[in-house]
Order: sequence, then C-alpha cells, then structure tokens
Amino acid sequence: MSLDAPAPVATRGPVRVVGTGLLGASVGLALSTRGVDVVLSDPSRTALALARDVGAGRLPADDDAPVTLVVVAAPPDVTADVVAAELRAHPHAIVTDLASVKGYVLADLRAAGADLTRYVGSHPMAGRERSGPAAALPDLFVGRPWVVIDSGESSAAALLAVRALATDLGAVPRAMDPAEHDDAVAVVSHLPQVAASLVAARLRDAPNAALDLSGQGLRDVTRIAASDAGLWTSILAANAASVGAVLVELRADLDRVIDALASAAAPGAAPETVPGALGVLARSIAQGNAGVARIPGKHGGTPRVYAVVTVLVPDVPGELARLLTDVGAAGVNLEDLQLEHSSGRPVGMAAISVLPGRAEHLERELTARGWRLAS
Amino acid sequence: MSLDAPAPVATRGPVRVVGTGLLGASVGLALSTRGVDVVLSDPSRTALALARDVGAGRLPADDDAPVTLVVVAAPPDVTADVVAAELRAHPHAIVTDLASVKGYVLADLRAAGADLTRYVGSHPMAGRERSGPAAALPDLFVGRPWVVIDSGESSAAALLAVRALATDLGAVPRAMDPAEHDDAVAVVSHLPQVAASLVAARLRDAPNAALDLSGQGLRDVTRIAASDAGLWTSILAANAASVGAVLVELRADLDRVIDALASAAAPGAAPETVPGALGVLARSIAQGNAGVARIPGKHGGTPRVYAVVTVLVPDVPGELARLLTDVGAAGVNLEDLQLEHSSGRPVGMAAISVLPGRAEHLERELTARGWRLAS
Repeated sequence: MSLDAPAPVATRGPVRVVGTGLLGASVGLALSTRGVDVVLSDPSRTALALARDVGAGRLPADDDAPVTLVVVAAPPDVTADVVAAELRAHPHAIVTDLASVKGYVLADLRAAGADLTRYVGSHPMAGRERSGPAAALPDLFVGRPWVVIDSGESSAAALLAVRALATDLGAVPRAMDPAEHDDAVAVVSHLPQVAASLVAARLRDAPNAALDLSGQGLRDVTRIAASDAGLWTSILAANAASVGAVLVELRADLDRVIDALASAAAPGAAPETVPGALGVLARSIAQGNAGVARIPGKHGGTPRVYAVVTVLVPDVPGELARLLTDVGAAGVNLEDLQLEHSSGRPVGMAAISVLPGRAEHLERELTARGWRLAS
Repeated sequence: MSLDAPAPVATRGPVRVVGTGLLGASVGLALSTRGVDVVLSDPSRTALALARDVGAGRLPADDDAPVTLVVVAAPPDVTADVVAAELRAHPHAIVTDLASVKGYVLADLRAAGADLTRYVGSHPMAGRERSGPAAALPDLFVGRPWVVIDSGESSAAALLAVRALATDLGAVPRAMDPAEHDDAVAVVSHLPQVAASLVAARLRDAPNAALDLSGQGLRDVTRIAASDAGLWTSILAANAASVGAVLVELRADLDRVIDALASAAAPGAAPETVPGALGVLARSIAQGNAGVARIPGKHGGTPRVYAVVTVLVPDVPGELARLLTDVGAAGVNLEDLQLEHSSGRPVGMAAISVLPGRAEHLERELTARGWRLAS
C-alpha cells in the first residue's frame, strides 16, 4: 500500500505508544511521519527522550485530547499488566500489544477481568539485530506479516483499527487465534533461535584452527545466535509449552541420529555393515530436505525454486555494484543474492538466484561482460 | 596467488583425477585452464563424458606418460579403497584424496599396508549447493582453506606436491593431523548440517499459516538443510565418533533447555516464579552469543564486528545495483551484504556491513542520495 493512503479514524490519533524500544519507537516514527499525533510513554526516561529525539512522537501534556488507540510495546513478561492498566486508564481507547507471544497475555487479561471488547492482540513479524529507539525505522514493518488476534470479545471497530494500523504501516495483516499463533512462532521462530544458540554454544571451546575452517553454512546457521539474551529469555518463558513441545520432538529425532552414529562408530563397524544406522542418517537429512522446501519464497505463497548463477567478485569497492549493474543490463531480475566470503582471502563469490528460465541467458551475458563464473 | 604462477613439478602432470563429481571436475578444470595435462577417470561413463565436455581434462590413452599426481575425489565411503588401488597402479605417483573426513581413510590405508610415503590426505573446504561435473568451477577453491594431512610417513616431496596443488588452485593450505581435522569439521561443518536438518524436519507438519510467518532467521538456519542426503549420510557415518560426541554435548544443553521450559510452563508457574528456569534459558542464549562471536570474519583471523546500515530496496531490476553504486560512490567498502525478503511483498531490506568508523558517513551519503534507511 502507499504511505499516502488516508488513515482510518482510530489511527488518526492521538495514538499512545507505551514502551519506546525498537518496535514501539518504529510504530511512533511511522505514524508521526504520516502526520499522526503520537504520545510516547516509557518507564525509562532515557529511552523516552531518545524516542522523542528520533521523531517517534512527543511527551504527554495536561491538555491532551483522549487517545483513540494505545499500542503497548513492552517486554513480553510485563505486557499483560501494562495492557490491563491502559484499558483502565483510557476507557474509550482501543488497546493492542505487540508481544511476540499471545496466549498468556489474553489469559492474564481475561483472569484480570479486563474489557476485552477494546483489546486486540497483535504481533508484527519484524525486527532487527539492533535494539532500542535509536534503531527505530519507519519502514520496519513494510511487507512483513502482522498477526492480528481477536480476543473472542473484540469489537468489530477494535479489529478494524488494529488491522488498519498494520496496513497503514505497510504490513500484511494475518488473522490467527492465540494458540495457533504461539504454536506457529514456536516452530518458525523460537525453534531456530534455540537451535542456533545451542550450535553456537558448541563453538566456545573449539580450537582456533577449527574455527578457521568455518564456512558459509556455519555462519548462516548461527547468525541469529547473536540475539539479545534478555529478550529471548522472556519470549521462550512466555511460550514455554509450545516451544518445549517442538524441542521434545526435535530431541527424539536427535536421539535417533546419536544412536545411529554410535552404531556406525562401533569398533569394527564399517559404515556398510550398519545399513540400519545409515538409513536413519539418510532419513534425517531427507526429512530436512522436505521441511526446508516448504518455506515460502521471496514473494510469499508456494515455494519457488530459483536457478543460481555463481560469480567470482574481487573484493574491491564497486565490483559488486558493477556485477549487479551488468545483471540489470542483462534484463534479469535478481530474486536473491548471497555473498560467500573466502576466509583468508579478499575475494568473494556472489550467488545470484534468478528464475530458472533466465539462468542461461544471464550466464551468457555475464561471461560476455568478462565475469568469471561457475555454472 | 595469481593463476599465472608457474606450477611445481608434481602438478605439471600428467595429473590423474579419479572421480569427476563437483570437486574432481573442478580440480581438473582449474588445472586444465593452467595448461596442465589432466587425465580423467570415473566409474560413471556419463559423469566422465560430461567432465571432459566441460573442459576438466581428457580420457586416458594407451601411450600416456606416467602420471605424477593422482587426485582421488571419490565418495567418502569408497575413498580408502580407491586410494589404495591408485597407489598400487601408479607406483611412482603421489596420491591425495579430497574426502571430507580423514581419519578413517588413513587408518584403512595403514591396515591395507599401503605405501604411505606417497600418500597425503587433503580436504579443500569448498563446495556448492549444486553437484556433479556440470557444476564444476575453476575458481571453486580460490580463497578457501585446504587442509593438508601428513600420513606420518609422507615424504617431503609428497607434502610439497599437495600443498602446491592447493596453492596452484588458489586455496590456502592448512596442516592438520587427521583427528584434529575430523574433530574440527564435526563442530564447524557436520554439527550445523545435522542441526539445520533437524530444525527443517520440524517444518514438515507445520500448517501453511505458520510457514507464512517465516522470516530471515528461519531461512538462514535451514538453508543447508537442502543438502544432498546420500553424500551427507556417508560423511556423517565416516565421522560418526566425532559428530556423535558433539551431538551428545548439544543434547545435554538441549535437555537443560527442555527442563527449564517444562518448569516455566508448569500450571500456575509465572516466569518470574521460576528464576532457576529463566537462568538456564538466559545462559543458553548467552553461551550462543559467546560462541558465534568466535567465528572468524570475512578475511579470516580474529572476528571483526561490523556496523550494519539497513536500507529499503524496491524490488525492481537495477535498484540494488544503484544502491551499491551509491555505496561505492560514498567511498565505503562493503564488508558483507544481506538481503532480507518480505514475505508477501515485493520489497527488500539490504543490510550493509561496513567498518564501524564508516557507518555514519555512509548513512549521510545514502540519505543524501534519497535512500530510505534504518539506522
């Protein structure tokens, strides 16, 4: 959607943003740049001042008009309490929260007897490796899924307002129920985080000579292991049941692999003498093949298989730009780009994903332009 | 090193390449393009003909001069037998193999009473998602580590020849002993492969609505789960003891996480009432932070922390090229580039890694050029 589209009533503001970390400040920044009056609140004076200074909104004033929408962007473990307080403090406002786990928030609010007609939980699937208001980005939500959750009692106006907030910020609203959402993020977000952290933890005691053999595979698998420990502790604890269930399933598969390796490693057991073990290993990798094939492609929807053209790129400023200029000149749209670095040498490989039908044409064009390539 | 450097004696050839898959054909292609006479051998007539057609070398002839070097690029499970046969068939040639696991090959050769003075095991840390001779690439080894392993009886000439092969192909030779190598690849290569496959396997039964929430983190963690099941079965079986040991350590950490989640999920147990569980979760993520920080940076050596500038890139041919041209025009060298795709929308985020001191300058320059950015 265009950022010039008119805002629906509830998001015309004043909108109150409670919690001015990366997400809250980004919401404030995006709404402010669209002319919405955003009032900021945060227990940390530093975070609050910083959010104001980056343009996320203003501080409250005594003569403020009543807010129409409250966006709670607090840490997961305090979200329910903050939402309940905001529902009480702003009896005519619609209240949403951005917590990445939804079931426990709704359960706590119901237990607290909160007015669920004015509450709609939500979860924008957006984030960055950096955190805090200084990392705020008005475009943070553009193109990302934004889960919108009916409390079961949410009014039509409340649901519309939160969907409108998502679309106004360029996101794609997706209706889900809390359990469905929490099970989904357990497998597509929380599971990979735990796996990446556990793999990376094994590197702590590895010799430098071993780490010198690191390749792109290890870098990809462990990239998100750099995530914030405090935030993830709250997220995992808040979704403990769903994450635990998925990890128990993974452990069962892991046990099978460990047992298979033990019999393959048994003294005198040449691999070909333990077909059962080999079968388990082959099945484990094959099941991974089947699973990864289900991840939606760049434009969502069904997975698309791209052809990959790999090009050697001298590590000199401007070389990658020159390559991509040539790709554009060849009239080929780049679907994905991966840079493979060569440990110990200033040279890189650019793996360019294109629609299968375009690969040969691109290879001819790039070769003609003097690029050294692979396939 | 430059590809024009003179080849040392043993690699002047004729060089015999046994096994014309991706690695063997790439070795043949790289040597052939440097004028070395390469003789190809493969049990598969199709693979052999294809390797010849892509320029990896020629078929054997009756009047061939004796080969000086044999490069065995066979599947891991048959490598030892092939090396032993080549040592017998070419009594004056130096023989190396490229198997990704080394200990069992040397043990089998010693057991078979092979002439270990002429044998030097090696392992180029290079590969592609595509396999077979058609994917062969003369630059496949450029800048990659290439492990060279003294059999304990290897002659100085044999060691020199295999180191020369590595450097001639643009790789960086690294001396290791077999156990050191196998333990190293178990943690930096085989462990992430198993973890990626097990995580991806959990996606098989996930609802489409869950997969629609997939982000870059899941894509990164599971990318290598698309690897070839047959090849990886042989690799894992051949390194069963080392991989098994690392997986047992990972399972111990996983058990702690699962137990912590179970107590956090216990009925009535609010996260803050189970500090012990939270401590375990926080420690697991923090240990991942510490491990990932040890992975060497782009140019090898000690890890370098880069500043990241995130830019919104319309998904239109040429836009990414225009961005990188502007980065070059700003006089900033790009250390790494990651494209984040937005499921459901044709818009992307380019995360540009630069030396910390250059980030502010780059942000000013890109903003001045009209880019919408993040930090």
